[in-house]
Amino acid sequence: MKFGIIGINGRMGQEIRSVFEEEGHELVYSLDKDDEFRSDIPDVLIDFSLPAVFEKTLKLVDEFQSPLVIGTTGLTEDQLAKLDLISANHAVVQSYNFSIGIQMLLKATELLNDHISDWDIEISETHHRFKLDKPSGTAKMLQSVFAREIPTSSLRLGNVAGDHSVHFGSLGETITLSHRATSRRTFVEGVYKSALFLNKRKHGLFSFKQVLFSK
Amino acid sequence: MKFGIIGINGRMGQEIRSVFEEEGHELVYSLDKDDEFRSDIPDVLIDFSLPAVFEKTLKLVDEFQSPLVIGTTGLTEDQLAKLDLISANHAVVQSYNFSIGIQMLLKATELLNDHISDWDIEISETHHRFKLDKPSGTAKMLQSVFAREIPTSSLRLGNVAGDHSVHFGSLGETITLSHRATSRRTFVEGVYKSALFLNKRKHGLFSFKQVLFSK
Amino acid sequence: MKFGIIGINGRMGQEIRSVFEEEGHELVYSLDKDDEFRSDIPDVLIDFSLPAVFEKTLKLVDEFQSPLVIGTTGLTEDQLAKLDLISANHAVVQSYNFSIGIQMLLKATELLNDHISDWDIEISETHHRFKLDKPSGTAKMLQSVFAREIPTSSLRLGNVAGDHSVHFGSLGETITLSHRATSRRTFVEGVYKSALFLNKRKHGLFSFKQVLFSK
Amino acid sequence: MKFGIIGINGRMGQEIRSVFEEEGHELVYSLDKDDEFRSDIPDVLIDFSLPAVFEKTLKLVDEFQSPLVIGTTGLTEDQLAKLDLISANHAVVQSYNFSIGIQMLLKATELLNDHISDWDIEISETHHRFKLDKPSGTAKMLQSVFAREIPTSSLRLGNVAGDHSVHFGSLGETITLSHRATSRRTFVEGVYKSALFLNKRKHGLFSFKQVLFSK
Repeated sequence: MKFGIIGINGRMGQEIRSVFEEEGHELVYSLDKDDEFRSDIPDVLIDFSLPAVFEKTLKLVDEFQSPLVIGTTGLTEDQLAKLDLISANHAVVQSYNFSIGIQMLLKATELLNDHISDWDIEISETHHRFKLDKPSGTAKMLQSVFAREIPTSSLRLGNVAGDHSVHFGSLGETITLSHRATSRRTFVEGVYKSALFLNKRKHGLFSFKQVLFSK
Repeated sequence: MKFGIIGINGRMGQEIRSVFEEEGHELVYSLDKDDEFRSDIPDVLIDFSLPAVFEKTLKLVDEFQSPLVIGTTGLTEDQLAKLDLISANHAVVQSYNFSIGIQMLLKATELLNDHISDWDIEISETHHRFKLDKPSGTAKMLQSVFAREIPTSSLRLGNVAGDHSVHFGSLGETITLSHRATSRRTFVEGVYKSALFLNKRKHGLFSFKQVLFSK
Repeated sequence: MKFGIIGINGRMGQEIRSVFEEEGHELVYSLDKDDEFRSDIPDVLIDFSLPAVFEKTLKLVDEFQSPLVIGTTGLTEDQLAKLDLISANHAVVQSYNFSIGIQMLLKATELLNDHISDWDIEISETHHRFKLDKPSGTAKMLQSVFAREIPTSSLRLGNVAGDHSVHFGSLGETITLSHRATSRRTFVEGVYKSALFLNKRKHGLFSFKQVLFSK
Repeated sequence: MKFGIIGINGRMGQEIRSVFEEEGHELVYSLDKDDEFRSDIPDVLIDFSLPAVFEKTLKLVDEFQSPLVIGTTGLTEDQLAKLDLISANHAVVQSYNFSIGIQMLLKATELLNDHISDWDIEISETHHRFKLDKPSGTAKMLQSVFAREIPTSSLRLGNVAGDHSVHFGSLGETITLSHRATSRRTFVEGVYKSALFLNKRKHGLFSFKQVLFSK
């Protein structure tokens, strides 16, 4: 697969390049600020840059006629609507979180909610001391699985990258579903899965959840 | 609901009675050794006794024309075949493990196996010091979810009732599914769910898994 | 050892009797409400009853000239002062918590506080859904080890007997000290250790902490 | 404090420099291969390089008359003996593991072993899939605290940096002491503590354990 990266000098851009190359794929296009490199037409374009670059990204998709994986955060409603528009002719994966494990945690939480939503339920999360918001965005995603409010505990500790647990308890047993981030690498694997997924698609706008769970 | 218990003086029998009565149901039949009590015809019959009592149980099902929840352990192949036979005319739930949580753990493990079977996978379990077999029967059930052999660690510690965890790891994140038994009460809740399930069935032989997951 | 129990029909009284008898000791005195049994003079007297019984307990100590282990909760300041008084001539252990493990958790927490009190510190505890107070009394004991306020998370889940954890985090590592109660038996072991401890003492008022840690 | 680093271009050297500078100290000497920088005489010299550099390190200690923190791994018996020799006139800290948390875990394990060595004890550790040896070196250090053999479980999972737990269980409770590595930063903090410790010493050869626990 030939691939291109918009935002190649960012931390995600660098890691994406290294993982794709490890897997035997070839970088044929890259862009970062005014630095542009082009040796061929990419089979897939990956954008982890800034909303300000979005229009350029659309132009490149049109020029290359390539599918797009976009993880740029902070897109406006307008920009998301434009992705929807171009997805009539191009296959696109858009997500703010490419962690496979978090998607699995959500999926397992939904499964248990289907069957034991009447159990006591608690969410807990631990993050590094520099994280100011409580609870974490992921904890909110977990909360939104349930039809009722779920008590949520937030611990701030050292430089923990991110632990999330959903606890279920009845009079006799407890079940805990836990996720722990150990490196940014996990997100890159999600981007890679998305690129492979798009290889087989001609058009459509997909979430990362669809990448993982559609057959 | 009017209910009857065969083996009412056993530890499970006692707890079943107490949970059903808490829920507002009425004991109308009981049997234990030569002690028989009968005030009415039960809507459901529950048997947590011994294989030697099995023939008597069949007679009672026929006499009362009631559904049966049977958790008696050590049934012979013959006895299981007879359950299958009578299930043409009676609804029956048979299981050796009525823990809802363990069924949920199995279900969640299957879900993750469907999607991330290529991750590193480990099973660990902790039980009280008196448990001689390693790994536990439940750990074996968990192992059997996977198409390959899963490394399994067994800890023996104090009087821990039973902890089981399935760990998944990739280069960037780990997911752990954990179950912990805190009392026998959990099994009684499973029996109660089974009784409610049978209330709507005319015939058929069901596993506890079917009780939980069939709609 | 010959032993006596005041409050023998309570849950603690029953378990104390059974553990002491398992260990080969002989019940020679018991009291509960108006039920009194006496076959000999006890070598140690154990009181797990009510503050209202306290005067009777003092009389028995004087009559038997025996040491006393007292775990009755809710003693008044006056009653505690009287224990101090009689300890001039009798060896007494008084405590509201005879869990060895909780004492060890406190001790380990003190150790870490001596060396890494500048790390991020968090306490978490999980108890059954029926526990109304937050945080637990034990969590408060743990908090009181530290010179500053420690954030504390309380989860309420099923029928968890009691989990407590103290978490320490720096930029690079975390340490967690955890305790989990699995049965009331643990408290009885503490009472038993106290009785053995008193066997070697002629007088003095001791805490359970002293029983465990004095040489 | 003015400091010097031998092996400044290594991963540890880089991190040491950055932490010391963050704390307001000044790099006045550095060495890596043939690159030597010198602007002043250091108050402390830190060596995280290779055994081949050892003779040069000794010369520098003599020239600067400065204390030494040495974390270079694979020193020969001869080299260790030479450290002992020069420690008559220079204060030296030598260790292969500058993790504060692991030292605390060992200390807490020793504390519990002093009091509840008769409980069931288990060790468990989890490391990334690339770690070939089982159990880990740290698990062996933990094992060596105890007078008897301790069952030890090793899990290999994703890219877990390193988790270690010591579990104690009695009939009624469990205690778990856990350590989890989250980054190399932790070792640099240990080096920093060692440098401060040496500031007050004129001579002597110290372990990292002594740095942490001597008053």
